[in-house]
Amino acid sequence: MNISHIEHIGIAVENLEESIHYYESVLGLKCYAIEEVEDQKVKTAFFQVGGTKIELLESTSPDGPIGKFVAKKGPGMHHIAFAVPDATEALKQAENSGVALIDKISRKGAEGLNIGFLHPKSTHGVLTELCSKEK
Amino acid sequence: MNISHIEHIGIAVENLEESIHYYESVLGLKCYAIEEVEDQKVKTAFFQVGGTKIELLESTSPDGPIGKFVAKKGPGMHHIAFAVPDATEALKQAENSGVALIDKISRKGAEGLNIGFLHPKSTHGVLTELCSKEK
Repeated sequence: MNISHIEHIGIAVENLEESIHYYESVLGLKCYAIEEVEDQKVKTAFFQVGGTKIELLESTSPDGPIGKFVAKKGPGMHHIAFAVPDATEALKQAENSGVALIDKISRKGAEGLNIGFLHPKSTHGVLTELCSKEK
Repeated sequence: MNISHIEHIGIAVENLEESIHYYESVLGLKCYAIEEVEDQKVKTAFFQVGGTKIELLESTSPDGPIGKFVAKKGPGMHHIAFAVPDATEALKQAENSGVALIDKISRKGAEGLNIGFLHPKSTHGVLTELCSKEK
């Protein structure tokens, strides 16, 4: 499916402000954007790290996907996102390979990307996002 | 601490061979090395993805760190590794910032890197590795 690089690593946090402080003051990274994605019930913070990004995710509601994840597993690594030329096309290819999809076609995610998720039951436990820039 | 990039993402798997097959046949990535790290009781497989790597980890023993992780949480994302100029120096800086360490000084990891881990209780739930090349 022509993955070019890891677009970002999604990390679920309990408190965005405290987590940003840790990534900045201890790791020396710099938060360059904060964005709310209402559809996903999250507030996100982005850090550029070499050619990829870290996306911190704080839930804005206990019934959102990140709220449920943190309630069940605690804060921690949540998903890996691969950059592809066309997310909808890549989702289709994955489905043709027998992978269960969370999203049949791509939808809008943070930073205006087209995104879609593969189901972790088909990906050896890793919630996997495919994303592409608007053409 | 002068992180240059994400060196790799560590992913715990139950069966290395089956997981390599998924990463190659579905995602189209290419495994370029398989290595056993006896000290850590793991067999690892590496994939280059843009400027970073994916490291799949299968436990060679139920009492190793990956064996325990998979027994407790199932397969999935395990750790994030940041490249720094000097892992021991970066561990010291983290400790001076109040971070609990798993490794006080760096030790040899896969691919001959000097590596050390920060404790997830100090890193908002993310098992965090710092690694550097031999000088």
